Amino acid sequence: MSLTIICPGRDMSQWISALKDRAPQLKIEVWPDIADPAAVEFALVWKHPAGVLAGFPNLRCISSLGAGVDALLQDTGLPVGVSLVRIVDDELKQSMAEYVCLGALQHFRQFDEYRQQQADCTWQARPLRHIGTMRVGILGLGELGSHVGGKLAEMGFAVHGWSRSVKACEGITSYYGDEGLAAFLAVTDILVCLLPLTPVTRDILNSKLFRQLPNGAYLINVARGEHLVEEDLLAAIDAGHLSGALLDVFKSEPLPQEHPFWRHPRIKITPHIASITNPESAVLQILENYSRALSGQPLLNQVDSQRGY
Amino acid sequence: MSLTIICPGRDMSQWISALKDRAPQLKIEVWPDIADPAAVEFALVWKHPAGVLAGFPNLRCISSLGAGVDALLQDTGLPVGVSLVRIVDDELKQSMAEYVCLGALQHFRQFDEYRQQQADCTWQARPLRHIGTMRVGILGLGELGSHVGGKLAEMGFAVHGWSRSVKACEGITSYYGDEGLAAFLAVTDILVCLLPLTPVTRDILNSKLFRQLPNGAYLINVARGEHLVEEDLLAAIDAGHLSGALLDVFKSEPLPQEHPFWRHPRIKITPHIASITNPESAVLQILENYSRALSGQPLLNQVDSQRGY
Repeated sequence: MSLTIICPGRDMSQWISALKDRAPQLKIEVWPDIADPAAVEFALVWKHPAGVLAGFPNLRCISSLGAGVDALLQDTGLPVGVSLVRIVDDELKQSMAEYVCLGALQHFRQFDEYRQQQADCTWQARPLRHIGTMRVGILGLGELGSHVGGKLAEMGFAVHGWSRSVKACEGITSYYGDEGLAAFLAVTDILVCLLPLTPVTRDILNSKLFRQLPNGAYLINVARGEHLVEEDLLAAIDAGHLSGALLDVFKSEPLPQEHPFWRHPRIKITPHIASITNPESAVLQILENYSRALSGQPLLNQVDSQRGY
Repeated sequence: MSLTIICPGRDMSQWISALKDRAPQLKIEVWPDIADPAAVEFALVWKHPAGVLAGFPNLRCISSLGAGVDALLQDTGLPVGVSLVRIVDDELKQSMAEYVCLGALQHFRQFDEYRQQQADCTWQARPLRHIGTMRVGILGLGELGSHVGGKLAEMGFAVHGWSRSVKACEGITSYYGDEGLAAFLAVTDILVCLLPLTPVTRDILNSKLFRQLPNGAYLINVARGEHLVEEDLLAAIDAGHLSGALLDVFKSEPLPQEHPFWRHPRIKITPHIASITNPESAVLQILENYSRALSGQPLLNQVDSQRGY
């Protein structure tokens, strides 16, 4: 029996020591150094090489190292019948909420404009709306979206959300399905993308969607770079329809040096840091799922591979 | 009977129309155009000329236009025996909480550093602490301080506060008095000044106080410019002891063009916009106090002129 870590190119020392602290008896192996592939029952995976998971005949469970499983599901050689789980971590939700509240407050309180005024030595108060008239729309009301929406509502924003199927989240007006999307977008001043990446949501942030937002709307993308058609965002901002964007994720990461996002005056970028899975808290559910997988019990945070999340 | 507005140099049209909407019968006069000084019973005041209030022999109540009464109390010619009140407004508390949460989150999530990295085309994730280890200390646990502290705690920060006398605020560890100040400062990573300005608190943000903060502490001043010894802040930042500051208020406003704060890389300034009294909501308590003053009932938000707030 072993738990195998397949996270090439990533420093896993914090994860390994957190696992060992909690489960000193556990045999941990780091791919590609596997003594006996037939003994591997549980794999902890991030950006694994396609096909490699098929090499473990007795694998019972594959756990993503994060909340997203899009990279995992892109592997057409995933072994059939092996359960997939992901990390749903309170700290991950918390850090995401901090980032989105910060981005929304910065836009609402016009801190970029005040930063520019400081650079120009201009003392000028700008008109301030009441926060309850600033409408934040969350695309995706899953574990992250509903938590982030709750924190934005606590801060005072008018929050509404959109999801593929109907969801009830306290304090969040809810829209759903293709038929609800236009109505959702029409009342969104700040659009926050927290969708899972699936074939259906890829490229969803495009010119057609941007046109349905009110003039001056602002985008925060903290989901996946593949949700965004980057040239459509540049066109919408440069045409003056969108007022700007805060982006944490990109189609290609690290963002290539020549990419126009680096130098665009109305685009703020961060290097995929909105939310980081914390090893200390996440290993608890990894170990719980390890023990459940071995004893055949229902798993936590299981992924529906058809749905894609 | 009249309500007189004495706010020289300030556009009061929004206030006047809000007052007229709520109280169409009310006689409103704007100083210096006063038909009969003996008929003035209530004065709404902001940065009035010293001594002018003594010219109304039947004045019953003076209301500050904002939460602070420091400018009012500096007038040694205030008529004796006239009640002083101030505005304690939910919207003022809300906008203050937004501003301080924004400032604290920006510092905590290192957005200035990420902004610099974007300017340098540097893709580099920075280590992130858990928000519960980031200690925000609020100087002044009055109406504003306790509300702001509650919002910071909701966001996840570890919040504690200091006040002159003992105060109990839910979710906020409390220190008080001269003897509590050093212990309060020693555990403060982000210091938020929300004190009233009094002879005791003037210049309280000085080198001696900064030395008692942990290395790398950050300052947010949203109270009054006179709380801060500006050259002491510059020295503490330039020596590397403080990591930076967000300042909304200044000894001289507008901040003079030649002032070093405009161009300091670790100081962010805004033009006294953290919190703005909203006429629509504030006129309700002004009219309530007007009616109470006339009928001799206890006033809302009365100021103790000895204490200074």
